[in-house]
Parts: sequence; structure tokens; C-alpha cells
Amino acid sequence: MFEVRTDLAVEENERIQKQNASMRGISVDEEKFENGNIRVTTVRIETENAVRMMGKPKGTYITLESPELAEETDDYHRMISEKLAELLRRLIPEEKKERSILVAGLGNRSVTPDALGPRVADQLCITRHILKEYGSFVYGSDDIRSVSAIVPGVMAQTGMETREILSGIVRQVKPDYLIVIDALAARSLKRLCRTIQLSDTGISPGSGVGNHRHSITEKTLGIPVIAVGIPTVVEAATIIQDFMSEYLKDMPAEEYRPRLLSPQLNQMFVTSKDIDAQIRQLSYTVSEGINRAFCRIPQS
Amino acid sequence: MFEVRTDLAVEENERIQKQNASMRGISVDEEKFENGNIRVTTVRIETENAVRMMGKPKGTYITLESPELAEETDDYHRMISEKLAELLRRLIPEEKKERSILVAGLGNRSVTPDALGPRVADQLCITRHILKEYGSFVYGSDDIRSVSAIVPGVMAQTGMETREILSGIVRQVKPDYLIVIDALAARSLKRLCRTIQLSDTGISPGSGVGNHRHSITEKTLGIPVIAVGIPTVVEAATIIQDFMSEYLKDMPAEEYRPRLLSPQLNQMFVTSKDIDAQIRQLSYTVSEGINRAFCRIPQS
Amino acid sequence: MFEVRTDLAVEENERIQKQNASMRGISVDEEKFENGNIRVTTVRIETENAVRMMGKPKGTYITLESPELAEETDDYHRMISEKLAELLRRLIPEEKKERSILVAGLGNRSVTPDALGPRVADQLCITRHILKEYGSFVYGSDDIRSVSAIVPGVMAQTGMETREILSGIVRQVKPDYLIVIDALAARSLKRLCRTIQLSDTGISPGSGVGNHRHSITEKTLGIPVIAVGIPTVVEAATIIQDFMSEYLKDMPAEEYRPRLLSPQLNQMFVTSKDIDAQIRQLSYTVSEGINRAFCRIPQS
Amino acid sequence: MFEVRTDLAVEENERIQKQNASMRGISVDEEKFENGNIRVTTVRIETENAVRMMGKPKGTYITLESPELAEETDDYHRMISEKLAELLRRLIPEEKKERSILVAGLGNRSVTPDALGPRVADQLCITRHILKEYGSFVYGSDDIRSVSAIVPGVMAQTGMETREILSGIVRQVKPDYLIVIDALAARSLKRLCRTIQLSDTGISPGSGVGNHRHSITEKTLGIPVIAVGIPTVVEAATIIQDFMSEYLKDMPAEEYRPRLLSPQLNQMFVTSKDIDAQIRQLSYTVSEGINRAFCRIPQS
Repeated sequence: MFEVRTDLAVEENERIQKQNASMRGISVDEEKFENGNIRVTTVRIETENAVRMMGKPKGTYITLESPELAEETDDYHRMISEKLAELLRRLIPEEKKERSILVAGLGNRSVTPDALGPRVADQLCITRHILKEYGSFVYGSDDIRSVSAIVPGVMAQTGMETREILSGIVRQVKPDYLIVIDALAARSLKRLCRTIQLSDTGISPGSGVGNHRHSITEKTLGIPVIAVGIPTVVEAATIIQDFMSEYLKDMPAEEYRPRLLSPQLNQMFVTSKDIDAQIRQLSYTVSEGINRAFCRIPQS
Repeated sequence: MFEVRTDLAVEENERIQKQNASMRGISVDEEKFENGNIRVTTVRIETENAVRMMGKPKGTYITLESPELAEETDDYHRMISEKLAELLRRLIPEEKKERSILVAGLGNRSVTPDALGPRVADQLCITRHILKEYGSFVYGSDDIRSVSAIVPGVMAQTGMETREILSGIVRQVKPDYLIVIDALAARSLKRLCRTIQLSDTGISPGSGVGNHRHSITEKTLGIPVIAVGIPTVVEAATIIQDFMSEYLKDMPAEEYRPRLLSPQLNQMFVTSKDIDAQIRQLSYTVSEGINRAFCRIPQS
Repeated sequence: MFEVRTDLAVEENERIQKQNASMRGISVDEEKFENGNIRVTTVRIETENAVRMMGKPKGTYITLESPELAEETDDYHRMISEKLAELLRRLIPEEKKERSILVAGLGNRSVTPDALGPRVADQLCITRHILKEYGSFVYGSDDIRSVSAIVPGVMAQTGMETREILSGIVRQVKPDYLIVIDALAARSLKRLCRTIQLSDTGISPGSGVGNHRHSITEKTLGIPVIAVGIPTVVEAATIIQDFMSEYLKDMPAEEYRPRLLSPQLNQMFVTSKDIDAQIRQLSYTVSEGINRAFCRIPQS
Repeated sequence: MFEVRTDLAVEENERIQKQNASMRGISVDEEKFENGNIRVTTVRIETENAVRMMGKPKGTYITLESPELAEETDDYHRMISEKLAELLRRLIPEEKKERSILVAGLGNRSVTPDALGPRVADQLCITRHILKEYGSFVYGSDDIRSVSAIVPGVMAQTGMETREILSGIVRQVKPDYLIVIDALAARSLKRLCRTIQLSDTGISPGSGVGNHRHSITEKTLGIPVIAVGIPTVVEAATIIQDFMSEYLKDMPAEEYRPRLLSPQLNQMFVTSKDIDAQIRQLSYTVSEGINRAFCRIPQS
């Protein structure tokens, strides 16, 4: 009933390592950059057994972590956005340059911690309509990919599932790749706004702040789906459960839950008081990462 | 080259009447309400000849005009939104209550006079997902229609034609009617924010502040398209041409245009300094009109 | 260190009643309206002893509570805003009609649950500049008060204390009353967006979502200060402590706090996933309440 | 009645040069940077006679012009913001580092071309409250100035003159300098969003999109006032008059004005359809210029 939710594969991995579970079918690589300030962890979930253990679909999950991720210094921002561009190009092969990309900024523009996706979309370099009308020569470069973007809104605003909207647009516009940007729920407060997760698995039910109910994946949409997410909230039920289980280590969880946790909690999230400044900075960094990866106009 | 643009059928009608053109194929009805404060004009374009004369597709165009349309009094707002609900039900027959409606809020949320559509969508009573999940009994009424909404954005933000986005969603979600809300360009300053136009013809190329390039009509989308528009700008080229032709009545227009009007003008519009207050009020009135027409929850 | 915070006098009162504390110096009146749907509680803190017990300054605290406060029905909204206007006029005596009012919309416009104040200010009927330029006859009524408004921002945006900004403006502009609108922190999730609190005591350190550090009161500003607040968040530390103390009834609170609650929690708040819709509705209701109380233009 | 308005000293200077007027009392310097891509013109109005001719107060006016000012390339943005920082330091002497600065973002946040000032303020590095609480050592540098900011709003929103609000805050908070950021009206469409004007004369009645009615100057506020402005609109009356006078060169202007120009025009402005993208880019560039000038945190 009150599930402890995390959208982060690294958190799942930590949980499983703690349980001393078998790690077959899961490979983990770790790289460090900038004097260890940036840590890139690549988790690959390769077998059905690993899928079951992790509760996440087969695929590659890359996390970029940095304690200063949301710092507002120009140099830091540039460093992260360049690394992000490089990681995106790992997931979307460079050699297929002519391939077009649709970016979907998921989430609710009017709820600050859920506005990451819409605000990334606002700052993208959009090229599809220009390439279609004039060709790539207007940019003086063959290196510009066709990029389009959509902000579908959330179900309370649209009455439609995000998957329905994206599915319709993908069938009509026929991009080669879909990148979905979304604010995520983490389990731990200390990861909030400190981690960017990229994966080639798309989005599964229940993930994201807004709790998508249907998969947005290659299987449901027919094209590869790259998910880019940043944890911006912790579910209120999760934070309480974590504190209590820390305290009540030896007691079976089932015992206290029914008595204490009210159903209202499911509609609640926890976030930080300066979430506005963090969303502003992070949405700029992610949009610049995408811009650098796919439509960087050459500087003369 | 510099076309005098108006999206309002009543303005076309006035122009044609001035020219003493034959009016066969065009029917005009006028009704007055609230001591003459609200004027409802219904223009029907019925023949191919009328289509050519008016430069607008065959169909019904209803305009609701009032000098106080954007006034911020509660009573006035209620009166207009009730009249609007009634006019919408003329265009979408009441007897087919079970029919579902998708509302598209066209335009650019970030440019004040073009934000009408998105801001109407923000304030709608959205029911589709609730009816789908729980049925109409949750509302205690069979009178609630399935309403969904989308804010597709403009081409500079999405890289896609509005028609492409709507077409994809309509095919996937299969609503019975599409209502498109859009900010329009008028010819005359005195109509700005003083007129609501409804029509059953959808939207044609070149209309709206954002200049849609492709038709959004029953023919292109496969379902009836009701357009609701309010003029919020005058094109800069239009305003200059009107002032000049007023002054230079006897001179052929071609003579001065090439010399005087710069191409930059095509990218410019004229609007009023208090457009923010007017868009806030009008978007509320239009959203309430739609809410009253289709999903008014009974007050106990 | 981790103080259980509530800005609501009714919650303090409940706490104290539970403790069976002496109630001398505190008077409580309760009225019910609309078949009991609206409950108005007036708490008067009258003695120094009561001040110490309640941890709140001497004065009158009126709360308007309703389970449907944030419901989006026109009739309900109208009922609440009329009641609110009546309560405001209790605190600002009707007979001194010529007195001018400055409304300050406190909080951070960019953080959804903290945006209540700025969004109320956005929707006010502002009259001071018009009365000053043309006199009251333009409104056709002597019943219009001089209303001005300011959105001062929060310290992270301005570098200044809210009190400094308001103090400077009050000295310059010399209004007779200051009304401050602010989002509050409640202790209980079930009060979120369900209560409006009015008081004639102004704002004390530590109250509000943004944690004002200096008093905004008649003593510091030199004019009467009416505070209007709605709880929109619960502090993250509070929610955890409440759940734990419920569970660990017999254990002294000091024992578990140091071990479990991280300092990060102080920077965190809990709010609901549909806070955007609630803030939209509540800011409209509060602004209409103020408009009805002070500058309702007569409807012919 | 219909005054041709320009807030740009370079435009006044051009007008006067065209009239072959005496230039005594006016000094003009021009510098070019980046292969001539950036032009910096410094106009000094030094005598009472020059004041009369220019219709602008005595002082220094620096304009930075570039055809690519609003281009969205990182390198270009960085170049302009660095040059802007340098020009600001010319007007606010470096040697008095300990001096504190208040930045006022003038204009209406809800009207896109008037939102420049508020959006610059949103992106500033605010240090006053941190320096006051912890001292400069938290930044690891003595080079950080005390920067505070306010977004006062416009008279229709506040009922107060901008000067009243700023005057009150300045008296209370006592900064050493005031920088006011404002969107300006230009005469020529081709300057829109292509020029930044800095001056040490503050703001005079009638300037800015919102038409300030009272001076915001050292004389009225008691501290030096630096004005930073970018033309984002042309007044509708101006654009028509300019086109007509171009056409009707030999005809006295008085003859056509009364007949043709409607009073509504005074409430209208002209701006470009992509003003949202330009304001987004320009507000970022100006805020970065100010950040670089006064609170650049050293990069290790």
C-alpha cells in the first residue's frame, strides 16, 4: 500500500548490495572526473533475474552525480553540460547523424519541483522546422540534427495519459528517437537535485513526480526512448517510513503502517525551500547538454 | 506582399458591404441582449461565390461583441460566459451529450497577447480521465461531457506544425469534437479584446497571431472543428496601411507600399499596454463559458 | 533544534486544550454557516499568561475553516469570499471609510505553495492611483477605498528583510492599514488549504513558509497590520516528529531526535501534488474577498 | 499631443545631427570591438544648451550596439556580458569596492516586452543578506559587493509611483548606488533589442515602456542612479508618424495628425513576434553583466 518509491537505479543498486543479493546480471562501472567532483556510474541490467531484483527494466542506466550539481557558477554549469552531452551521445550513436529527435518535457509547469521537463523544453535549440524549410546549409554545418519538442502537460490538466499524447505525435511526426525529460522521486533527501539519471529504457509506470501510469518505452511507442531524469522530490510516505524503519530496525514494517500512515500522505511530496533556484539552474544545464549534443552551431 | 489581415468575419463583411458587393450566399443575423450591451451577429457563408468574396470558408461565424467585454466586474463576466456557453451549444448539438470534446489552447504562452489559448486551457474543468476511471456517477450527474485539453505550443518552440501535433493526438485519442482557442489579428484597433468569434469552420492558413500555415479543419483532422477566437493584436503593416489609405484616398495603394513599408514590419504586431489584464480577464471568461457549456457540476 | 511549527492559532489552541492547560486569558467563539459547512472560530489572546501559553502575541485570531475551501465551484467560491469580506471588515472598522490600505503579497512567486501572497496581489482591484488622480467620482461611489499593493519578494531574491522593504514603503506612502497575505506552515496535513486565518497582530518571526526573521507588526511599522494566511505546507521535520510521537507515545521526544533527524530536513517542506490548482483557486477567493470588502464597484 | 518618443540618446543625437544643429556641449566618442561587431558610443551632454537641444538631462550616455545582440550563442552572450560589466564599472568606480548596490527591475512582469527589468532581477547574484550575516569570507574573496534587488511592479499593479516605492526602500536600506533596469521605447524598429543604453542620469518622466511619471534620479533619491535600458517596443503613434512623415516630407505635420491619429493609439505599442525569445536572452545577458561586474565568485 505504501510503497517505498525511488526512480533511481543507483538507489536500487545500493539497496540490493546492502541485502548482499547476488549481482549476476548487473554490471556496474564507475568513472570519476574533475578531481572526483563528478561521478558517473553506469548500471547495466542484463538478465531477467536482474530485472526482478532491481524492479527496473533491462537496459543501461547512467547516473551523473555531483555535490555541486545545482551550483550557479558558469564554469561548473559548462562542465556538467559538456559531460551530459557526451553521455547522451553514448546512448544515441553519433554515426547516425541524420536521425531526428523529439524531446518531451514531462511534468507540471505550475508545480515548481515538477517543472523541470517543461523548462528544459523551453530552452532547447529547435531545428526541425528550419531544416525542413531551408535545409542544413542555413546553419553552415551538417552537424545540426533535427530537434523538435513538446510539453504534453499532466493528466489533471489534459485528461489524457502522457503516453497517449506522445504516441499520437510520434506516429504523426515520425522522429527517430524520443528523449523524455522528467522530475523524479528519490528515496533519499541527500540525492535531491544532485543526480542526473540517463537511461535507454524509457519510463515505466509509477515513475516521475506525476506518477505516469503507462509505459513510455520503445515497446509502446515504436522508437527508442531515452529518459533523462533528476530527483527533485521525495514522497512523503517514503520519508516517514525511512525514518521509522531506521528507528524501529527490528520491527516488521507491516505492524505500524496501517495504524500511522494516513492515505492523504500518498498525495504529498517533500521538497526543498529553494527548489525554484535549483530548477532554474538544472533546467538550464540539461537544456545546454542537449543543445551541445545535437545542435551546437559552430562558432566562427 | 503586405496583405491587410483580419481574422474576423464581421470585419470582412463590413468591407464587402462598403464595396456594395452582392450579398447573395451570405446571410447575416443580429441579436441584442442586456439592453443592447451585448451584440451577437451570425454570418453564414453559404455559396462558393460568397466564399470567394469573403475569403473565408463556408460555414457559420458567430461574433459576440460588447464594449465592456474585458471589464473586471463579476456580474458582467457571468453574463458573457453564460451567453458564450449558449452559443457553443448551438454549434455542438446538445442531444449528443455523450460526445467527447478535446480543447486545444493555441498560441505562445510566453507572448502576452498570444497567451489567450494556453490560459483558457489552464482553467478548464477536465473530466475525461475521471469519467474513464470512475464513470459519470462521481459527478452525480449525467450532464458532464468528457473534456480533455492540450496546449501544443507554437512552431518556434516545437519545430512542428500545430496541425501535425493535433492530428496525431486526435487519431490516438479519438474525441468527437475539437475546439481550438486562439488569439486573432483584427484590422481595427477598436475591436481589440472587444469581440469573441465562434465558428464551425476550424482554422485556416494565415489566421491567428502566430500565423498557422496549415488548415486545422474537419477536412484535415476528420472531426468537426469549432474555432473560438478573440482579436488581441493588429498587424503592424495593417495599421500603417489603414492610416495611409485613409489619408491617401485617391492614390493607388501600390505606389507607396514598396517605398515605405519595410520587411521587418511583417514580424511586428501592435497591442495595448494593459494587454496582461485583458488576457487574464478574457481567458477566465472563455474558460468559464466552456465549463458552463460542457461540465457544469450541479450545485446542491 | 527541531521545533514543531504551526502558524495557526487554532492548532495552538487544540494543543493547549489537550494539555488541559488553564484557559484563562483566552476566549474562543465558534460560529457555523451554510449548514455547518463553514466554521468561523475567533480566538482572543488577552493576557500575558495566555501569550506565554499560546506562543503568539496578544490579539484577535479569526479562522474560517471549510472542508471544501479549495473546491472549484463558482457558488462556493462566492460564499467564502463574501464571508471573508465580512471578517475583514470586522478587523478594519467600516466607519473609517476614508482610510487607505496597502496590501503586501508576501512569499516567493516561483515556489508554488509559497506563491499565495503574490498571486492574491496580482488579482486585486487597485484604486489608489486613480483616486489620487481623479477622485472617487470616477467610480460613481464613495464606497471605494484607496487600495495599493506590493509584492516584496523573499530574502533570497532581494537580499533585504521583508520588514525593511515594507517599512520603507509605509513611511513613504503612509497608508492607514497594512494587510499582509502569506502562505503558512500548519502542523497537520488535514488543514492544508482548508483554513484561512485572519489576525490583527501582524506577522511574527518564524512564521510563514519563508520564515520571516523580523516582526511585521504595528509596533515595528507604526500602523495596524492585519495578517491573512492559509496553510499550504507542513514542515518536513514536523510531519516526521508527529508520526513518531504518535507511535512512541511514552518515550521522551529528546531521545530519538538527535539520532534520526538530519539537518537537511530544516530546509524541506511537505505539500500536496495538486498544490497548483489549490493555490490558483485560493488566491482568487482571497483576492475577491479583499475586493468585495474595500473596492466593490456598484453594479448598475 | 502625439509626441515622437525615443528613450535612446543615440537616436536624439542622430536627429540633431540631421538638423545640422550646433554640437557644442555634446561630446561623442565611438569605439569598436570584435571586428566591428560591437559598437560602443559614449554621448556626454555637458551644457544647459545641450540639455535643451537633446531633451535629456546632463550626464553620460553609453550605448552598446550589435546586430547580433539577442543571438542565442554562448560565445556571443559571454562577450557582450563581459563588455557590459566593463561599462558598468566605468559608471560605478572600482576603487569604492565596499559600496553597496540596489538593483531595481522596473516594468511589468506580465507584459512580455516590459518584463526585461523583472527578469534581470530574477537572475541576479544577491549577496547583501549573506554579507550581512556572515561577512565576505564565505565567498573566499573581498571582491564581492553587497547587491540587493527589488521588482517594484507598475502603477496599475501597485497604485503607487515607482519613485515612491524606490524612495522608501532607499531611505530604509541605504544602498550607495541604485541601478534601474528598464525596457525602453525606441523610435526605429531596427534598434529593437539591438542596443543597450547605460547612463548615470537615472530615469526621467515619460521614459520606459510603462511611462514613468516621476524622475528616478540622484536629485529625487539622494544616491547616484545608473539606468540600464534596452529598447523593446516602438510606440504605435511614433511608427505611424514616422512612416507618414517619410512619405509626406514637405507637408506640415500638424495638418494630418488631428484627422488621422486616434487617441487609442497612445495606449498601443509595436513589438516583434519573437519578443519572448529576445527578452529571455537579453535578460540573461544583462544579469550576467551585472553579476560579472559586482559579484563574480572566483573560480578555483
